[in-house]
Amino acid sequence: MQTATTLYHPVMTDAGLLAAEPVTAIDEFGQTRDGQIAAERSLTVYLDKREVLTLMTLGTQPELLVLGWLRNQRLVPDINHIKAIQVDWETESAAVTTFNGIEDLDTKLGHKTVTTGCGQGTMFGSLMDDLDKIQLPQVHLHQSLIYSLLHALNEYNDVYRRAGAVHGCALCQGTDILRFVEDVGRHNAVDAIAGYMWLNDTPGHDKIFYTTGRLTSEMIIKVAQMGIPVLLSRSGATKMGLDLARKVGVTLIARAKGQHFLIYNGADQFDFDAKPARKPVSRPTHVEHARS
Amino acid sequence: MQTATTLYHPVMTDAGLLAAEPVTAIDEFGQTRDGQIAAERSLTVYLDKREVLTLMTLGTQPELLVLGWLRNQRLVPDINHIKAIQVDWETESAAVTTFNGIEDLDTKLGHKTVTTGCGQGTMFGSLMDDLDKIQLPQVHLHQSLIYSLLHALNEYNDVYRRAGAVHGCALCQGTDILRFVEDVGRHNAVDAIAGYMWLNDTPGHDKIFYTTGRLTSEMIIKVAQMGIPVLLSRSGATKMGLDLARKVGVTLIARAKGQHFLIYNGADQFDFDAKPARKPVSRPTHVEHARS
Repeated sequence: MQTATTLYHPVMTDAGLLAAEPVTAIDEFGQTRDGQIAAERSLTVYLDKREVLTLMTLGTQPELLVLGWLRNQRLVPDINHIKAIQVDWETESAAVTTFNGIEDLDTKLGHKTVTTGCGQGTMFGSLMDDLDKIQLPQVHLHQSLIYSLLHALNEYNDVYRRAGAVHGCALCQGTDILRFVEDVGRHNAVDAIAGYMWLNDTPGHDKIFYTTGRLTSEMIIKVAQMGIPVLLSRSGATKMGLDLARKVGVTLIARAKGQHFLIYNGADQFDFDAKPARKPVSRPTHVEHARS
Repeated sequence: MQTATTLYHPVMTDAGLLAAEPVTAIDEFGQTRDGQIAAERSLTVYLDKREVLTLMTLGTQPELLVLGWLRNQRLVPDINHIKAIQVDWETESAAVTTFNGIEDLDTKLGHKTVTTGCGQGTMFGSLMDDLDKIQLPQVHLHQSLIYSLLHALNEYNDVYRRAGAVHGCALCQGTDILRFVEDVGRHNAVDAIAGYMWLNDTPGHDKIFYTTGRLTSEMIIKVAQMGIPVLLSRSGATKMGLDLARKVGVTLIARAKGQHFLIYNGADQFDFDAKPARKPVSRPTHVEHARS
């Protein structure tokens, strides 16, 4: 039994695998190049012995991924209900055991069938329903902090640099990077961070969420549901993502790379204390051209 | 009734919307920048009045997206079974009507619930099942053609350049770009191309499929199922994607940008007739560093 002062942790395997494997390719000079390629593994989730879905993942932190997925899909209301998460790569399975079963599992899975945007990657309908309840704190940010954090994040993105084909997400507090997760799907990386926060009962109000991925509606919803008021990305945003960020009060900083960034929401609470020296005279008139 | 010489087309609306909207952001100099932001729209698919799922999409080619999604999910075996696809943005809905209903729809949707990788984006299990039946032709490719095609593709990627946050896919024949589709989800862009091919009864054996997105297992499976033997991407690949490409015989060219590319599969059928002049002496020893 857990007490108020002791965190409860389900029994979990530690089955993380290496993120990349050696590969040989032929380059544009016709020369052989040895390098690395990102792994991609199939992991079927069983909830109390019932097959629920198959995730395609990098496979480095499968237990946190499954834990965060259960949370973000609202299949399990409380981490104390989860007895164990056991990942076995031989059978490509993650067996989740609960103490007393899941109430209304049929209804919850049925709901998934109906409203899930499988082209998008998650239970969109269900996620949207809870947005009205979210109140995020106003955050005062300094440009100098953003630059320091971006600099610190350069040390990460390890698999990306070595092998490409992955997205990274980080949970940050000030310039500290509490957790960095890479995965072949950006939704998986977000879920694994959510799993980490659930496991450690980590509050979101004083955190910054960084992602290499695009800021679509689903990303804003998930970050808001983690209670995190600041979202920083090296990619762009969608209009629906921006609308949702305004609605729930997420500060939205996109295209953050080197010294460049664009604040789409929350600029009134932003302190420009580290403006670059160069004036943007030669810049194009539209927002940006760069690929991410 | 269609004959052997006349293509059958379902009745379809033409409800495509603009891909980007004006937006104002604040840059790193604290200055206001007017630009554009990619749209993201919710589209719920009803199959014979039954709600099936909600797609998040750019919304430029919703009918082709729904058509290709139906095909790729194997929900409708023959385009002749589809009477109409009617998209109505007022209700954010796409109503698909069939002539005689869908056989085993409950089973097919049930299967989706069980094996779908919603973290991944599609009916993975079902897609994998059919791979063994696929035989792709061997293709002899010229480097000069790849360069000409990449040059032609630079004219596209329109929304990306203006607003970011989208992925592009193209169906190519030689250096001709038959169809270019951008969407907020790369799976949507692939599905819309599949819809185009289904509608026009386009064979895949003499085509090249280009994508800005990563070459994961699902991308290889979908392209193989379209019968297309060459996959060209400006991003990286995963190990499972590479394994599947080898299995079904898809030529896999990744990191294709400017003069650079890496052939992961099919290099033995590749004619290096346009090698760049510069020798790669200063290159790092691993495959690549660049972000896509």
